[in-house]
Amino acid sequence: MTAHADLSPTLQLAIDLIRRPSVTPVDADCQKQMMQRLGDAGFMLEPMRIEDVDNFWATHGKHDGPVLCFAGHTDVVPTGPVTAWQIDPFNALIDEHGMLCGRGAADMKGSLASMTVAAERFVADYPDHKGKVAFLITSDEEGPAHHGTKAVVERLAARKERLDWCIVGEPSSTTLVGDVVKNGRRGSLGAKLTVRGVQGHVAYPHLAKNPIHLAAPALAELAAEHWDHGNDFFPPTSFQISNVNSGTGATNVIPGDLIAVFNFRFSTESTVEGLQKRVADILDKHGLDWHIDWALSGLPFLTEPGALLDAVASSIKDITGRETKASTSGGTSDGRFIATMGTQVVELGPVNATIHQVNERVLAADLDVLTEIYYQTLIKLLA
Amino acid sequence: MTAHADLSPTLQLAIDLIRRPSVTPVDADCQKQMMQRLGDAGFMLEPMRIEDVDNFWATHGKHDGPVLCFAGHTDVVPTGPVTAWQIDPFNALIDEHGMLCGRGAADMKGSLASMTVAAERFVADYPDHKGKVAFLITSDEEGPAHHGTKAVVERLAARKERLDWCIVGEPSSTTLVGDVVKNGRRGSLGAKLTVRGVQGHVAYPHLAKNPIHLAAPALAELAAEHWDHGNDFFPPTSFQISNVNSGTGATNVIPGDLIAVFNFRFSTESTVEGLQKRVADILDKHGLDWHIDWALSGLPFLTEPGALLDAVASSIKDITGRETKASTSGGTSDGRFIATMGTQVVELGPVNATIHQVNERVLAADLDVLTEIYYQTLIKLLA
Repeated sequence: MTAHADLSPTLQLAIDLIRRPSVTPVDADCQKQMMQRLGDAGFMLEPMRIEDVDNFWATHGKHDGPVLCFAGHTDVVPTGPVTAWQIDPFNALIDEHGMLCGRGAADMKGSLASMTVAAERFVADYPDHKGKVAFLITSDEEGPAHHGTKAVVERLAARKERLDWCIVGEPSSTTLVGDVVKNGRRGSLGAKLTVRGVQGHVAYPHLAKNPIHLAAPALAELAAEHWDHGNDFFPPTSFQISNVNSGTGATNVIPGDLIAVFNFRFSTESTVEGLQKRVADILDKHGLDWHIDWALSGLPFLTEPGALLDAVASSIKDITGRETKASTSGGTSDGRFIATMGTQVVELGPVNATIHQVNERVLAADLDVLTEIYYQTLIKLLA
Repeated sequence: MTAHADLSPTLQLAIDLIRRPSVTPVDADCQKQMMQRLGDAGFMLEPMRIEDVDNFWATHGKHDGPVLCFAGHTDVVPTGPVTAWQIDPFNALIDEHGMLCGRGAADMKGSLASMTVAAERFVADYPDHKGKVAFLITSDEEGPAHHGTKAVVERLAARKERLDWCIVGEPSSTTLVGDVVKNGRRGSLGAKLTVRGVQGHVAYPHLAKNPIHLAAPALAELAAEHWDHGNDFFPPTSFQISNVNSGTGATNVIPGDLIAVFNFRFSTESTVEGLQKRVADILDKHGLDWHIDWALSGLPFLTEPGALLDAVASSIKDITGRETKASTSGGTSDGRFIATMGTQVVELGPVNATIHQVNERVLAADLDVLTEIYYQTLIKLLA
């Protein structure tokens, strides 16, 4: 293992951040450390603690001209069983294969270190750059996400801050750093369905209405439905039932209701209202007595080819020689909130193979590559 | 509401029993109360606690001559959501419509009170009656039923106890007390079905196999299947799913398996092996990776017209003016275990419209009628 002092500035900062056990919504002074660095580099700092969540907004540059914002989160998901880890998840060691190991190494303290070091270098090398470099950092991306990026974006929008381009440091890469960037995300629409029956004894089914029997054909039809075909940018809308529960536990009682929790990941070919209506029509067709509590997590968003995507793709090509692929697959991220400001949003970060798992890790050298890609992108857009 | 002291002995005892919250297998001293009464009336008492289940056997009379046994259970099913009840399920109030309300009012603490009071009167009025009056009471009829009536019957059979006739106090009536008695029961075959899928993230369904989606069409087909047409003594075989559970609780995780618990009530037109094969065929047709643990609760049994059925029917006619109907529909009862002793078994109890439901209730006056019917039957068979 390499001595800490011999590591690149990016790796030193990544290790420092990983060693702070910032499980959502705890920040554990990660943001204090980032703000210290950005403040020393000449950024204006604006901490925004909202309820129990630490956030900050930082800018460097002029009032006119375009704004390029780096966005990310200092919080990490829980470790899961620590005994299942080969190393202490908050010790941030680089192993004999050159992998930086620890909770947050990939999601997303590595990217935070890369974007901080890239921005430090850029404002030092181009003190008179165009427009602004900005940071929007939260500690509540992995949690409820109510008082994090969403709330900061509302404040920025209320005071008419401009935000042309945003690079979210989410781990977008699949096998090699930069092989994939995310230029949008599907929407996420959740639902808790209650199907009501009439409780009774299994031996007297004519006196009861079994909600499991009533719901089964409707659930089968919902699961088999094709909601749309997707489009050039999005895969088809998908529907998944994550939980279904009915029954009193007793084997001789017909239960009174059935609860099913399901989720749509939807493309721009479907709308929230359209999906809700089609679900209602299927449930009504089966004659069910039903109720749904809907929860919209995020609308789909898309950044079409343009200045940001071009700058990111050509920086990746310059540094790695790779042709990046723009994709909208995968889960939601805070990009969905930032896109509501009319911002072009791209997610670009390290390889995501181990995120949320035990033994989360990332190739240490990839973080230095990522710093170079962010730096080149800054030059292309703001130098 | 009527003051407690103004109520008949049957209603006073019924209320006392309902106020003891004896959810299976807890007896909550219901049996202690019954034994106190029967002991005071001159019965020989034999408590038989077997594993965690309270049971008792009690007899009054001579060694020779026929034996008429009253059988029943002090345990009740869970209340379900207490907030859905109009009254406290264990408070046993008589409402303005004359209905005795509470868990167990119909199934079957009302009958326990009626048979206790009828037996007290009979042995007082006919101290030199023929043969024996007996009681076989358990607290595990609504649960696994392993250490209840089944185990007591095994002990009685082992010591060659004679048991000619048995009246089980199960709520046999459909709209008016005595309109239906049960002279047999369908078989009961239970099953716990596991459908295996592959766990994953809802945003990446192509990497998972959702067991809820896979199982829903098969469950729908099982629920819609016609298993047989029944015959002169039995209604058609019925199938009910009592419990279905799948999901981790998280809304973004596709679960790894689904568990469904279901039950057949089957006529003599179907066999255990035949039903098992047809279920397997349906599951295989849907391409499921499945496993079933089967549990046979009881084979069908039948008591044909004879002394017991005649005595019961004519007592009902004497007291209510009704022609009773002998039926084998409805659930299993502990009668299936008693029938294995070669005993004629009839089930006779109050109206079953609300059993196992919230707001379980029975017309209070019906319990006094039931006491009279039991008393007349005792006279016809043993006076």
